[in-house]
Amino acid sequence: MKNVQYIASQYADLQKKICRILEATDGKSTFTENKWIKEIGSGLTCVIQQGEAIEKGGVNYSFVEGSITPIMEKLLGGKANHFSATGISSIMHPQNPHVPIIHLNIRYFAFDNGMEWFGGGIDLTPHFIDVAEARAFHNQLKTICDKYNDSFYPQFKKWGDDYFYIPHRNETRGIGGIFFDRLMPDKKNNFEQLLDFTIELGNAYPRIYSEMLKKKSKFNFTDAERKWQQIRRGRYVEFNLIYDHGTKFGLESNGNAESILVSLPSSASWEYNYTPEVNSPEYLTLQFLRKDIDWLNYGV
Amino acid sequence: MKNVQYIASQYADLQKKICRILEATDGKSTFTENKWIKEIGSGLTCVIQQGEAIEKGGVNYSFVEGSITPIMEKLLGGKANHFSATGISSIMHPQNPHVPIIHLNIRYFAFDNGMEWFGGGIDLTPHFIDVAEARAFHNQLKTICDKYNDSFYPQFKKWGDDYFYIPHRNETRGIGGIFFDRLMPDKKNNFEQLLDFTIELGNAYPRIYSEMLKKKSKFNFTDAERKWQQIRRGRYVEFNLIYDHGTKFGLESNGNAESILVSLPSSASWEYNYTPEVNSPEYLTLQFLRKDIDWLNYGV
Repeated sequence: MKNVQYIASQYADLQKKICRILEATDGKSTFTENKWIKEIGSGLTCVIQQGEAIEKGGVNYSFVEGSITPIMEKLLGGKANHFSATGISSIMHPQNPHVPIIHLNIRYFAFDNGMEWFGGGIDLTPHFIDVAEARAFHNQLKTICDKYNDSFYPQFKKWGDDYFYIPHRNETRGIGGIFFDRLMPDKKNNFEQLLDFTIELGNAYPRIYSEMLKKKSKFNFTDAERKWQQIRRGRYVEFNLIYDHGTKFGLESNGNAESILVSLPSSASWEYNYTPEVNSPEYLTLQFLRKDIDWLNYGV
Repeated sequence: MKNVQYIASQYADLQKKICRILEATDGKSTFTENKWIKEIGSGLTCVIQQGEAIEKGGVNYSFVEGSITPIMEKLLGGKANHFSATGISSIMHPQNPHVPIIHLNIRYFAFDNGMEWFGGGIDLTPHFIDVAEARAFHNQLKTICDKYNDSFYPQFKKWGDDYFYIPHRNETRGIGGIFFDRLMPDKKNNFEQLLDFTIELGNAYPRIYSEMLKKKSKFNFTDAERKWQQIRRGRYVEFNLIYDHGTKFGLESNGNAESILVSLPSSASWEYNYTPEVNSPEYLTLQFLRKDIDWLNYGV
């Protein structure tokens, strides 16, 4: 477990960089910093609210350790007694419904039985589908993945499709991205390279989102589009509270609830059997919320 | 399993009575009826939206049967291969923040191994605590319980405290009520009596809530009180999506998602680290969100 402190300090620096870039893009609101210490460890939760472009966003850094409960063991998929973990998780909810919701997570786990691994992902949840934006997003992720391992993008893209999925709605959360877990050093990628991979994803995250914010935050939108955003946020809440492993693990390990749930939007709505008009942008968006779309080549 | 059809038909009648009473109280909006049929069974979802007093409410009736998956087995706490179930579940979200959210569930399960039981509960979630209202509510529940068994109220009140609890917030959902599960015929209460008990609870539910609506729906409220209502609704969403067994069982058994999630409010909000002013009504409400308050005798 010699590496945990080393990685934790790099992730802590990365968190600050992410916040600085995003608040510069927002231009109005800044991140408040909330340090927390609990029995399980400590963290820094940076929150931006009521910005010009970002309605609510959180960038969480934490460094925790403790005993492994049966439920955690199941979530982790491995046998061990004690774990240490450090990571960053972040979600941004925009003001403008034409801007997508974005999510980043990078994490490192070490166990007393010698196991250690990285995990993480970036995924995008547009309220309104924009094929060119989805393609560019997946291309950006592929470019990063390919620097480390040709198999990463195809493997992690598929993993993202499966992970960011809402079974009871038979919908993906958005247009996916990448997701990976239990990523361990091997012949192809040593430990330092895997660490660099996660850090490069963390650096790409605010750049990618800043581009989107700059492009679309000033777009006009109607009350109907704002309402649709609220309904899509409702789905986001369903995914995070019912399925997201990070949320489950955090709450189960008695983490800081306010920090874990900073991922939730400032508002959301649910309307019974809400069905968009056929061929409306809302309707067309729903057609794209499915697995196995080859976004790199879609519509090219 | 001879009883299932018999009980299902009584519950179906009860659902209609509940809707008629509540829509008469609302006076503006009425329940729409949505029949659904899936592989697992069928149901009728009655939904009221944008009423004068009720902002959103659902009364679900269902009659389902199927094979038992490992996750369902864990939720049920018993070994069997096949189940039949019928029940009513209902939640009402009021327009006025001074009116509480209310919830009813009654259910009957029968299994191929001969087991059968009733379950259910009624609980109240005020946005603003009203001690007299809480006391009257618990007294009404006790009166019904005592007609069947002296041990029901004390036992089921405690069960409600434990069940309607949000561990990650260290808060109860509201002021509780009663909750019971795996209630089987014994020397004290035969099958018919237990069925009557659940039906009496179902009949009491719209009467109890109508009284509250009539008393408080015209109360004035401020934007700040409305905002607090949205935040409390956020907690309600957290409970329902993370902890509620009925929601889990419904989604796991591939039930009708729109019907199951009609329990969610039309809108909710989350604000990072929202902390009410000391001694404000919001603050005082939080002080009451804990287990083991003897509401029957509180403040008497």
